[in-house]
Amino acid sequence: MTRVAVVGLGLIGGSVALALGARGYDRLPEVRREARRRGIDVPDDVAGALADADVVVTAVATSETPSLLREVSALAPGAILTDTASLKLPVVVAARTLRAGVRFVAGHPMAGSELEGIAAATPDLFRGRTWILANTARSDEAAMEVVSALARKAGARPLVLDAEEHDRWMTWVSHLPGAVASALARVVRSRAGPDARALAGPGLLDTTRLASQRASLALELALADPPALAAAIDEVSAELSGLSAALRRGDTDAVAAFFAAAASARGELSGPPDAHSRG
Amino acid sequence: MTRVAVVGLGLIGGSVALALGARGYDRLPEVRREARRRGIDVPDDVAGALADADVVVTAVATSETPSLLREVSALAPGAILTDTASLKLPVVVAARTLRAGVRFVAGHPMAGSELEGIAAATPDLFRGRTWILANTARSDEAAMEVVSALARKAGARPLVLDAEEHDRWMTWVSHLPGAVASALARVVRSRAGPDARALAGPGLLDTTRLASQRASLALELALADPPALAAAIDEVSAELSGLSAALRRGDTDAVAAFFAAAASARGELSGPPDAHSRG
Repeated sequence: MTRVAVVGLGLIGGSVALALGARGYDRLPEVRREARRRGIDVPDDVAGALADADVVVTAVATSETPSLLREVSALAPGAILTDTASLKLPVVVAARTLRAGVRFVAGHPMAGSELEGIAAATPDLFRGRTWILANTARSDEAAMEVVSALARKAGARPLVLDAEEHDRWMTWVSHLPGAVASALARVVRSRAGPDARALAGPGLLDTTRLASQRASLALELALADPPALAAAIDEVSAELSGLSAALRRGDTDAVAAFFAAAASARGELSGPPDAHSRG
Repeated sequence: MTRVAVVGLGLIGGSVALALGARGYDRLPEVRREARRRGIDVPDDVAGALADADVVVTAVATSETPSLLREVSALAPGAILTDTASLKLPVVVAARTLRAGVRFVAGHPMAGSELEGIAAATPDLFRGRTWILANTARSDEAAMEVVSALARKAGARPLVLDAEEHDRWMTWVSHLPGAVASALARVVRSRAGPDARALAGPGLLDTTRLASQRASLALELALADPPALAAAIDEVSAELSGLSAALRRGDTDAVAAFFAAAASARGELSGPPDAHSRG
């Protein structure tokens, strides 16, 4: 039985703790209280939370992850560490400065919700989702296997990627959708009269959901690789301009072909991952 | 007790029948069979379905709605008719040609799902959603009230709009999100390698959900008012170009402001509609 401790009890950390029956800790007393109400075992100090842990999962922002890893590696010297930050290159770089002997596997569960914080945490958050793992200068095969097993226990599918490959991908599957959702929300809101809320159907709300990401997170993701995101955004603009030109010249065939190819593309993105997953 | 009959048992019609305990009919025998399995009372012919109905709800594509309304008004001469088509101007124009004495209220429940057909129908589809009603040359206040009451019975909030106002709005809250979702799906898929499915997290899947609309429906909506949609698309392109320029010149303040305003805009679109609804 692997004893797991989670540090940082927001949506992701709280959900990891609930999914794995793990002990937890958060620096905010009100979060610790709410986590206890949710049934998580939360000691009053971080050392108590980490005592005897075989695996420690950190669940804080990318920018806060390197210093937390250093702190945890000192407090839980025998444990395997893993993180959940949205970007992996900064974390993998930071891993090189952890002292020799520390075991650390970089991780990113591809899950989220419009809601935030421990109140929105749920043990099912990772069910059917991909949980990306990346090797670091401080990981080894046995540690990868331990963290993979935890991801599977949470209902997720582990997928091993290079940190660089992970971050390049995130531009397309996470940061770009966030930018597009944000642009759409801004435009529709600027056009909306008093009935905006009543007229926002599920289609608009789904398409703009990522615009409701905490602005600090959106900024962190957007600034991970600004030229790459700018290039990706320009590709979407080019697609949109092509469609708008076809609409203006009354080219029904081109408009039909645009939507038919889009439906097929969406189908290829949303099918069950098993057929194509390496995980 | 208002006796309701629904003609057309796809996702919307099937859900209306389930939500209201209504009788139903569909021209496809396999759909009638599946609807019966779902517990809907489905006679073998349309006349049997419409017998004694106080209200008939049509639930077919916009293009098929005018001829179905003529057919139903002949078979159920005393009933109040209402439709569920996505566009209201073509339906309101068609209403003028219904014989005098027919009572018809145009309607559009703002609900949907990635799934289609009777198999995806659910009595909860309209819960908390807006159900738009529009006056026509064949509607009267009492008929509006009867249809409003049915919308409320299905859990929806009725909202009365002009047909023209409805269709203008749909450009922004429905057709534009569909176009944006489609452009994004095309771009991401074109970049995706074998791991595309595994890496498509819930954020990407939500943002592209509308791209999976049946291509025939997407085309019908896109061609409702092509210059209006083209102009709306160009506004999103302009927003995206502004963001990509800010990323390229390293203007962190502008990028932060972009996402902060987007989060606030999304909040205004997604809040509870009561405060701002006229319905």
